[in-house]
Amino acid sequence: MRDVAIIGCGMTKFGRLEGKDLMDILVEASLKAIEDAGVRDKEFDAVYVGNMMAGELVHQTAIASALVDRIALFPAAADRVENGPASGASAVKNGFLAVASGLADLVLVAGGEKMTSADTDVITDLVSTMTHPTAEYLHGVTLPALAAMLTRLYMERYGLTERHLAMVAVKNHANGLKNPYAHIQRAITIEGAMGSQLIADPIRLYYTCPISDGAAALVLCSADEAKKYCDTPVRIAGVGQATDVQSVHEREDPAVLKSVRLAARKAFEMAKLEPKDIDVVELHDAFEILEIVQSEDCGFFEKGKGHIAVEEGVTALDGELPINPSGGLKARGHPVGATGVAQIVELVWQLRGEAGERQVKGARRALACNFGGFGNNTVIHILERMD
Amino acid sequence: MRDVAIIGCGMTKFGRLEGKDLMDILVEASLKAIEDAGVRDKEFDAVYVGNMMAGELVHQTAIASALVDRIALFPAAADRVENGPASGASAVKNGFLAVASGLADLVLVAGGEKMTSADTDVITDLVSTMTHPTAEYLHGVTLPALAAMLTRLYMERYGLTERHLAMVAVKNHANGLKNPYAHIQRAITIEGAMGSQLIADPIRLYYTCPISDGAAALVLCSADEAKKYCDTPVRIAGVGQATDVQSVHEREDPAVLKSVRLAARKAFEMAKLEPKDIDVVELHDAFEILEIVQSEDCGFFEKGKGHIAVEEGVTALDGELPINPSGGLKARGHPVGATGVAQIVELVWQLRGEAGERQVKGARRALACNFGGFGNNTVIHILERMD
Repeated sequence: MRDVAIIGCGMTKFGRLEGKDLMDILVEASLKAIEDAGVRDKEFDAVYVGNMMAGELVHQTAIASALVDRIALFPAAADRVENGPASGASAVKNGFLAVASGLADLVLVAGGEKMTSADTDVITDLVSTMTHPTAEYLHGVTLPALAAMLTRLYMERYGLTERHLAMVAVKNHANGLKNPYAHIQRAITIEGAMGSQLIADPIRLYYTCPISDGAAALVLCSADEAKKYCDTPVRIAGVGQATDVQSVHEREDPAVLKSVRLAARKAFEMAKLEPKDIDVVELHDAFEILEIVQSEDCGFFEKGKGHIAVEEGVTALDGELPINPSGGLKARGHPVGATGVAQIVELVWQLRGEAGERQVKGARRALACNFGGFGNNTVIHILERMD
Repeated sequence: MRDVAIIGCGMTKFGRLEGKDLMDILVEASLKAIEDAGVRDKEFDAVYVGNMMAGELVHQTAIASALVDRIALFPAAADRVENGPASGASAVKNGFLAVASGLADLVLVAGGEKMTSADTDVITDLVSTMTHPTAEYLHGVTLPALAAMLTRLYMERYGLTERHLAMVAVKNHANGLKNPYAHIQRAITIEGAMGSQLIADPIRLYYTCPISDGAAALVLCSADEAKKYCDTPVRIAGVGQATDVQSVHEREDPAVLKSVRLAARKAFEMAKLEPKDIDVVELHDAFEILEIVQSEDCGFFEKGKGHIAVEEGVTALDGELPINPSGGLKARGHPVGATGVAQIVELVWQLRGEAGERQVKGARRALACNFGGFGNNTVIHILERMD
């Protein structure tokens, strides 16, 4: 298996991008990544697009072929990859495989979603179509409802309080304020968060991510070739993906995100690294409770102690293990198909030392966790600066 | 790059499968493939599902994770791959890459679509969402319209007549009659076909495929391991995928399917084979004109002579180069996400000598062409019997 490197990345600002359609933003992110890699004159072998709901939301299918057409990357192979909200990381993984296998030398991976044109009810329903069709969806289970139940369980079992959720939100908003690509660039307070509208008890508006438009893109090539294009290539050192039981109530322990544990284990084994080797992390905080639980199940903190790490500032930008320097899904936003790619774009910037005001000093190794379904399909990438 | 083999395959009957939903048929095909490979007790590393429109048609997303859940293949990685009507072959290609790279040892690839519950108008519209959104879709361009224009061009330029389309249909119906999995198992006559309803002049009902439900599945492993599981494994000797300009009217020559030519060239180069080495072929005859044009652009016949080969019986089941022994999309049916996988299932059966009444004698090498968009993204696989 060939080593694979990221040699270019780019993204659109996330937010309510009026006047731009899904293809416009995929094009914008892709051209930035290609420009960044300095490969405008090279022939791409393959294009992968991570996207969850183009057909449902913008009535367009086969968008990977359409992206090739818009930026004239013919005759590159092109596929769209869908894995719910982990579609982005699944696209990255398949781009990785194309290069790792030797079938492709130069690959573009883009992720994008255009969501803000639809009503919130429509989005809530469409996102719920990834739950179990008869055991969950049919009974009106939504993602906020599942997150609320997980939060309640954490409160009862581990002493998590609502204030901990607010702390994560405050931290991620503070980070987002330093990220020009973030959807929400506004500081919030603990009191403000705890006074916000109740969505699904005990989850309030500020403990969940907004609905966003946005796209992000990466250029991949073999690690051997990477130095030709890029002074500071970033190697994809580990890739792990794992599935779990779909219905949350049928899992052995609903407080354990087993797919996160197994995906992390695979990624760490492949990278020959351990959690203590990681300098900076992007987790999938579609709900703030998820940042806490994933931080444990990735192996960074003991089970039931993730909220203590937040309380102690360990996960703050200047802490021992900064989590979501980008602002996370909470502040950067969550255009579902874009998120997994955007997490990796942020980490590449961090590892290259290009993250500006939100730079984690001296970061050399990073982990991204993209979470599909309500945790029944997780994709984790471990990245390492190559020099 | 490791050599990859197919060690198991299965499919549902294609047709109007009432009382079975999309997941039911994906499960049925997958379990048959797993049973056929004799790997029920093995751990799968990855699952790929080819599907074009689950969200739009059956209001379910993340169906690869759902399939893992239904047949308990945890913790296998799972992704859905979408590439319009070439979603099936794109899923096979990505499954191939997972094994070829060495990241996965045992992979399930399934393709499926549940279409007959929707009205024909809805299907025609949804399929059209893969055309260019502003240059084609907005103006009411549908796939039958594009096929009609290609047919007219072939009539003017190469002397194709309507009778040639009828001949392809008669041949494929005759083959389908010998295929217990085919949607339509009925012999037709030239006169019957030429008297059928006009859909988009000069295309009549019998020159186009039906709307079908169905699923097909394959089990892949490394070629080195294949003999452990299977007496007659089939090697994936060549994989080629290529894109072309999306708007048909903007192509250099609309009568040339450039993506087919380039995908075929890549696949033949990788397999170190030539068109004359191929014994049996499955082409993507969503419209009968496409079988003729693809048979030329794959390199089997000179440009403009494909219809002569049909006339001379070369492509018949007992001809020199049997095309669509399964009945093709015309008679087997075209559940879009399933088609690319079903083509390969048919060819594996042919190469193993298990195709019953429709067996092509002594077939050792085969080619499958799965056609996405109106030819702007083609995926070609070349298969070879391993013993």
